[in-house]
Amino acid sequence: MKSTTSSTESRPNKSTIEPRLLKGFRDFLPDEQAARQTMLSGITGAFELCGFAPLSTPAIEYADILLGKYGDEGEKLLYKFEDNGGRQVALRYDLTVPLARVVAQYRDIPKPFRRYQLGTVWRAEKPAHGRFREFMQCDADIIGTASSLADADCIAAGIMGLKSVGLERFEVRIGHRGVLNDVLGQFGVTVPDAQADILRNLDKLDKIGPGAVAETIAAQGLMDADQAGRLIATISGAGVPTVVTEAGLAGAEHLRGVLQALESMGFGPFIRVDMSIARGLDYYTGTVYETMLLDLPSVGSIMSGGRYDCLLETYGMPEVPAVGISIGVDRLFAALAELGQAPMGGAGPRAVVCTLGDRALDSALGLVSELRDAGISCEAAPEPGAKLKRQLAHAVRRGARYAILLGEDEVGQGVVTVKNLATGEQGQVERNQVASALV
Amino acid sequence: MKSTTSSTESRPNKSTIEPRLLKGFRDFLPDEQAARQTMLSGITGAFELCGFAPLSTPAIEYADILLGKYGDEGEKLLYKFEDNGGRQVALRYDLTVPLARVVAQYRDIPKPFRRYQLGTVWRAEKPAHGRFREFMQCDADIIGTASSLADADCIAAGIMGLKSVGLERFEVRIGHRGVLNDVLGQFGVTVPDAQADILRNLDKLDKIGPGAVAETIAAQGLMDADQAGRLIATISGAGVPTVVTEAGLAGAEHLRGVLQALESMGFGPFIRVDMSIARGLDYYTGTVYETMLLDLPSVGSIMSGGRYDCLLETYGMPEVPAVGISIGVDRLFAALAELGQAPMGGAGPRAVVCTLGDRALDSALGLVSELRDAGISCEAAPEPGAKLKRQLAHAVRRGARYAILLGEDEVGQGVVTVKNLATGEQGQVERNQVASALV
Repeated sequence: MKSTTSSTESRPNKSTIEPRLLKGFRDFLPDEQAARQTMLSGITGAFELCGFAPLSTPAIEYADILLGKYGDEGEKLLYKFEDNGGRQVALRYDLTVPLARVVAQYRDIPKPFRRYQLGTVWRAEKPAHGRFREFMQCDADIIGTASSLADADCIAAGIMGLKSVGLERFEVRIGHRGVLNDVLGQFGVTVPDAQADILRNLDKLDKIGPGAVAETIAAQGLMDADQAGRLIATISGAGVPTVVTEAGLAGAEHLRGVLQALESMGFGPFIRVDMSIARGLDYYTGTVYETMLLDLPSVGSIMSGGRYDCLLETYGMPEVPAVGISIGVDRLFAALAELGQAPMGGAGPRAVVCTLGDRALDSALGLVSELRDAGISCEAAPEPGAKLKRQLAHAVRRGARYAILLGEDEVGQGVVTVKNLATGEQGQVERNQVASALV
Repeated sequence: MKSTTSSTESRPNKSTIEPRLLKGFRDFLPDEQAARQTMLSGITGAFELCGFAPLSTPAIEYADILLGKYGDEGEKLLYKFEDNGGRQVALRYDLTVPLARVVAQYRDIPKPFRRYQLGTVWRAEKPAHGRFREFMQCDADIIGTASSLADADCIAAGIMGLKSVGLERFEVRIGHRGVLNDVLGQFGVTVPDAQADILRNLDKLDKIGPGAVAETIAAQGLMDADQAGRLIATISGAGVPTVVTEAGLAGAEHLRGVLQALESMGFGPFIRVDMSIARGLDYYTGTVYETMLLDLPSVGSIMSGGRYDCLLETYGMPEVPAVGISIGVDRLFAALAELGQAPMGGAGPRAVVCTLGDRALDSALGLVSELRDAGISCEAAPEPGAKLKRQLAHAVRRGARYAILLGEDEVGQGVVTVKNLATGEQGQVERNQVASALV
């Protein structure tokens, strides 16, 4: 590199490395991370209440396990590379395909298999507001039953997850790919490839509007513009289109069962049928759903999923139906912060023990251990010899609620001074009563 | 690919992908993962009690952030690749270097900064017993103080973490790189490069024995064989070598402070000075420690760390001392299982609601929601129309403790039948009393 004089001052020292993050990646510092963990344990707690058990899978999979599952657009976003042994590998793009791999690999897992997984996924997306290249998903899936109760229970678990973080104003929009194909059949489109092409276009209704979608469908020679317009009108109406309910087709029956079960469980008010939901991922075959925050629709869907009855077939297990839901917990957390509803963090310790005089140190450290054993988070100030003022400033900076002062005289008397750092109040307490004084 | 007749039967169908894991990577199925989560929350709980707050950093970093920190052997194990934007990136190898990057990047973080992080790391190791390519670490570090109390408190947090999972029989072996260099100085070796070469050899004492280490040191022309033998004898004795304590050197003073503080906190019985501990990683500068399970030494160190006062300098922050500890939680979990001390999982729901007759379904699903709201994990059996026997078999297979039977008559009477699946006992309960009957 050529050395320039003009820019040396603003550059870091040549021998040092500039500390920086990759675009689309994030650090969560303690206050935020503590709040995030509170949110995550609320969601996983809700999933456990709904009878889902935890699973963990690796971040890295053989590339062929992940390839061909997400459609062309998804595929481009995979982090693929060759490992040191020359194997083609990739970072997981979601938690659904690894789950399918697990179920196919351990064939004796009892079914229906209900699992949740909290894990990081990676997508080489163009970073944007609320969209990251590394983010967490929290998924609940049921493998091995085609029952509409399973679809409903995944959605129920998701709703309870959102409610666990205090959300009430959201809407789960439910569509159904099978029903959409049936509607297309009623319009005379019966070839699967043509159906898939039209679904991909319909998925853009929200983004580009009905006129543009109809034009694209016509331009691609899939339907004439007039017919495409009628199709869009049909699926844009409220509820399940009568053109399929009246024909008594299987997809419509199944969707009706899902809606009925959600109603019985008391979640009707959170549900809206929206046949324009098709979802981008290729593996969905039946119900598909997305969830919008009513007060912040701009962040996009915070919880999505659907039925994927054919994914297991890819791994040699035909006829293993499956359905799931995924909460985009990172996007959700960002949204909660924007709504002013993020859970409180409180990353500081409850107490800092300040030692006045080196000879009190032994006793102070013993007290630290006793308080921890009593379930009180605490630590010793790092400079036991320093002036009281300096140690108290440290306790305040650490966000502690109490400072405990221990000098040599107090060690002899078996007492300590407890100072409430919020109110400034302080008083002497018997040493063996300290824990109960720190409420 | 050429088609062969001989092997077709044992191969999976050509159009399917064989579900498989990369070597050195693992799935944790629900029973195991539930137990693992219990262990992890015990450890993070202990760290929080000790005044450490959570941090989260990305799995992927710019390669230059990670390069040059781990020594040649570590470097070879990095998962490096080029991302879709042509950037050289790598998966994190540990949680320490990303922490140093964070502290250097957000310069206004108040210090001392006490954080813990639970996260996955990747190393392209040769897989072996208890050694994986993807594993979790749970670290506690204190940045910004050279106080020996900080070293002691990291070790204290680690010991409390291990005790939280029920371990009592382990030993933390503490060495000190500065003291070792001081000992080398007393032996006339004062050139840093030569000191580093000798330390690397001493780190192999456990593996290849004192004779072989002395020979290697002599063969490399670092010391003569006789001198090397005396050096090894000096550092193999109990406690801090008198050759440095008598000289009153700073490293020995610091180490004495660490040992004294651990004694005051009541952790003396877990500690042994072992000057032969040098640790492989290049970034350590002072205390270094490893932890062996007394009943299972073969798994190697389950908790290690040390002081790394110069790492921050790499990112343009000189004079920011730091110290930390890292629990290899995956290795620990495998060891606990081997010792028969793994925490219990219990991944099944508390109750499965069996519906007898389709018309009871609405009421059964309502009951499922009510029980979940009351904090009882439960689910509806997936085939509400099926025979009772089949639904009960499902409840047993799911590992439920109770089955709740709800038929159309019972809906009318406002009661349910609760069956204890362990004892076979069953009885009718008022519907609004079910939650309290499921203790």
